[in-house]
Amino acid sequence: MPVRLKLIVAYDGGSFAGWQSQTHGNTIQDHLELALSQVARKAIRVHGAGRTDAGVHALAQCAHVDLPEKRLSPDQSTAALNALLPPQIRVLKCRYVTDRFHARYSAKGKVYRYRIWSGAVLPPLEAGRAWHVAASLDDEILRSSANVFLGTHDFSGFAANRGKLATDTVRTIRSVRVRQSGALLAIEFDGSGFLYKMVRLMVGSLIRCSLGKMDAKTISQWLRFPRVPRSRFSAPAEGLYLVRVRY
Amino acid sequence: MPVRLKLIVAYDGGSFAGWQSQTHGNTIQDHLELALSQVARKAIRVHGAGRTDAGVHALAQCAHVDLPEKRLSPDQSTAALNALLPPQIRVLKCRYVTDRFHARYSAKGKVYRYRIWSGAVLPPLEAGRAWHVAASLDDEILRSSANVFLGTHDFSGFAANRGKLATDTVRTIRSVRVRQSGALLAIEFDGSGFLYKMVRLMVGSLIRCSLGKMDAKTISQWLRFPRVPRSRFSAPAEGLYLVRVRY
Repeated sequence: MPVRLKLIVAYDGGSFAGWQSQTHGNTIQDHLELALSQVARKAIRVHGAGRTDAGVHALAQCAHVDLPEKRLSPDQSTAALNALLPPQIRVLKCRYVTDRFHARYSAKGKVYRYRIWSGAVLPPLEAGRAWHVAASLDDEILRSSANVFLGTHDFSGFAANRGKLATDTVRTIRSVRVRQSGALLAIEFDGSGFLYKMVRLMVGSLIRCSLGKMDAKTISQWLRFPRVPRSRFSAPAEGLYLVRVRY
Repeated sequence: MPVRLKLIVAYDGGSFAGWQSQTHGNTIQDHLELALSQVARKAIRVHGAGRTDAGVHALAQCAHVDLPEKRLSPDQSTAALNALLPPQIRVLKCRYVTDRFHARYSAKGKVYRYRIWSGAVLPPLEAGRAWHVAASLDDEILRSSANVFLGTHDFSGFAANRGKLATDTVRTIRSVRVRQSGALLAIEFDGSGFLYKMVRLMVGSLIRCSLGKMDAKTISQWLRFPRVPRSRFSAPAEGLYLVRVRY
């Protein structure tokens, strides 16, 4: 009897060309589908909660697959998949779910974290894991500007399009938390959903604000009168982490 | 006029064959000497506070060099060296010092941290940065066993020899701190100095104790009646971090 398996997956985004399947095959989805197809002895399609770009990390991405039968326990599935996957992708947990669960459509929200290193020199262990902004950032401006994103807005001004524009661009940001520890700054967004490149465009604006190159009022304006601004700044992929998907 | 420059250096140990110069050249000392010689236009010898093995990381290793003249400011030296070094090695800070300062002989102590991941699956971003012990560790036993190391002892039982035995094997451990955050465990040792492989051999014993495979009494015995035990366990290099050198 066919069964649906829910997977919690972590990956080091620096090693792959993003989540979504591509012809060259070096994406997280491709690696997962290859491993699952070997375990299930049948071509398996992986449905992710959402895509992440090349360089973007995941602490707990979520996906589901439909398998022909319940041959392995969740722990056995986890072990078998991790034995086949490259070490930069790990299945943290598996669970059988009903077919009412859909990794993408059942998602109620996501949490993303963005890490910034604002010291003069980027420590080697932060390479590929944080955005290096070698300037002192105004922490207070950063926090107050971040709060402007809170609530429900049309985020067209903070979205890139993938060829076509998204039709529904209204999203709700439930919380934005800024934490600082020495030169390391982490901004965590909890939202109903995120448009393409939305976190990176929000962080790009926040850093421009805290460098005095932009005003928080401009952020409010882009949210109130949504359109794609002429000049925007996107923070690089390597500082971005998909922390978890809410269901 | 010749001047002495003190350097604070961080590195990702996974990319190099350890600190000490070797003929193949892929050590941290070799890379630093190459960069310094290019800046000084003269062969420069780097004196480190101590060696670290392949795979061992440093958050703030210390070294000194003697330069023919004070041509660059400390900040200029930092920038010039980082422009020449691979990104896995970074000079965090430079400072001119008198020739009474010696990176190795002036050191009053060192702080080492050892990181252990005790969950079933090692998250990809911890690969090469923590020891994966896929078993539940007894936290209380770990803490009480760690305290056995406190104080001044002959650490012959917790030292490997590099061909010859060290003549003076007495060291003082000033503090051992065990911190836990979920599956991540960090053990930090502050000591007057550390013998070759001493931290890894201490951590190996602590983990064996917290797995119930060894008794803290055995640790005391090895400290009271110092000799090289027949069977020992050394924790792997990738979990070890040189945190700082005290002067």
